[in-house]
Amino acid sequence: MHVAIPLYPRFTALDAVGPYTVLAFAPGWTVTFVAAEPGPVTDDQGTLTLTATASYEDLPRPDVIVVPGGPGTFDAMSDEALLGWLRQAHEHSRWTTSVCSGSFVLAAAGLLEGLRATSHWALLDMLPQYGAEPVSERVVTQGGIVTAAGVSAGIDMALTLLAQATDEITAQSVQLVIEYDPHPPFDAGSPKTAPEGLTELALKLIG
Amino acid sequence: MHVAIPLYPRFTALDAVGPYTVLAFAPGWTVTFVAAEPGPVTDDQGTLTLTATASYEDLPRPDVIVVPGGPGTFDAMSDEALLGWLRQAHEHSRWTTSVCSGSFVLAAAGLLEGLRATSHWALLDMLPQYGAEPVSERVVTQGGIVTAAGVSAGIDMALTLLAQATDEITAQSVQLVIEYDPHPPFDAGSPKTAPEGLTELALKLIG
Repeated sequence: MHVAIPLYPRFTALDAVGPYTVLAFAPGWTVTFVAAEPGPVTDDQGTLTLTATASYEDLPRPDVIVVPGGPGTFDAMSDEALLGWLRQAHEHSRWTTSVCSGSFVLAAAGLLEGLRATSHWALLDMLPQYGAEPVSERVVTQGGIVTAAGVSAGIDMALTLLAQATDEITAQSVQLVIEYDPHPPFDAGSPKTAPEGLTELALKLIG
Repeated sequence: MHVAIPLYPRFTALDAVGPYTVLAFAPGWTVTFVAAEPGPVTDDQGTLTLTATASYEDLPRPDVIVVPGGPGTFDAMSDEALLGWLRQAHEHSRWTTSVCSGSFVLAAAGLLEGLRATSHWALLDMLPQYGAEPVSERVVTQGGIVTAAGVSAGIDMALTLLAQATDEITAQSVQLVIEYDPHPPFDAGSPKTAPEGLTELALKLIG
């Protein structure tokens, strides 16, 4: 299985690296970071630079596509090189997926029309503008389109896809390799469980 | 607060990028990837290249150090540039920390002598060779030394440190920003909960 993760300026690093780490540990799976041209792409903090090793043209038919989110998403939504590649690659992919605001890139490519989809909790309400039905779930599967909630949700999505593509034992083995036995010190990762007033503080951090 | 994350060849990407994403979202925190010399450093899959933007000399006194793990750890344990920097930086840091096998780099620098510490579950038994007392916990704090379990445990560690350095509300806000409300599809992320025989399969994947 060949996985392509497109990088665009001001993506959020964990959106990309969470699913990458899960899928790259799977036996027989290859993950490639792609961009319009190979080269460095800098994240939302302006701090971390990941290197795309292939262009979109180099990888027209990946089995799985994972579009990360981040503040750069809204520029990426008008990046015709990215959108054109996505549309064509999606015709052949087994799964075209997104993490966080990456779902808006899928939407901009016309891939979410009429589908249930998720995104970062702060952006869910905007999905109907693009013809999608917002769903507050961690991972939403609609045939070949899979969307995940904010940032860290890509890890859960990748394990879910891996189990479907291979078997539960393989996905569980990778989960054990990355010791993904999460114990967050607080139960504040969702607006449903966060203390009152926390969404306002989180929105300020997002900026 | 200034956080330094040293990169060495064949580190595991999520070990570094998990804590990075948490701490870089904290207001007023800066995270810098460092190496002997600034430049690209390639991960354990040979696939993902992160860029160190500063040398060890450039950043002699970070407030927090996070040493990632990975198959390259065992070479890093004899990297005198890294070990020398760690020893000196630790004299001034608030926390010197590790994720996964990164605890063995702390051990090689002589920083775990007589301390309780953790690491990836597959390596815990080796900690006594370096004078540390192995503890099967997600995050182990011993004053200024904090060690985390395998790969994904760095996210939990970073939230724990952030709460201590600032306050719970700030850490919870970051947790909500990254929507860290984990729902792994399986309960297989720890040898304590994984199905029988899974540790053997996971060890094969680690290789």
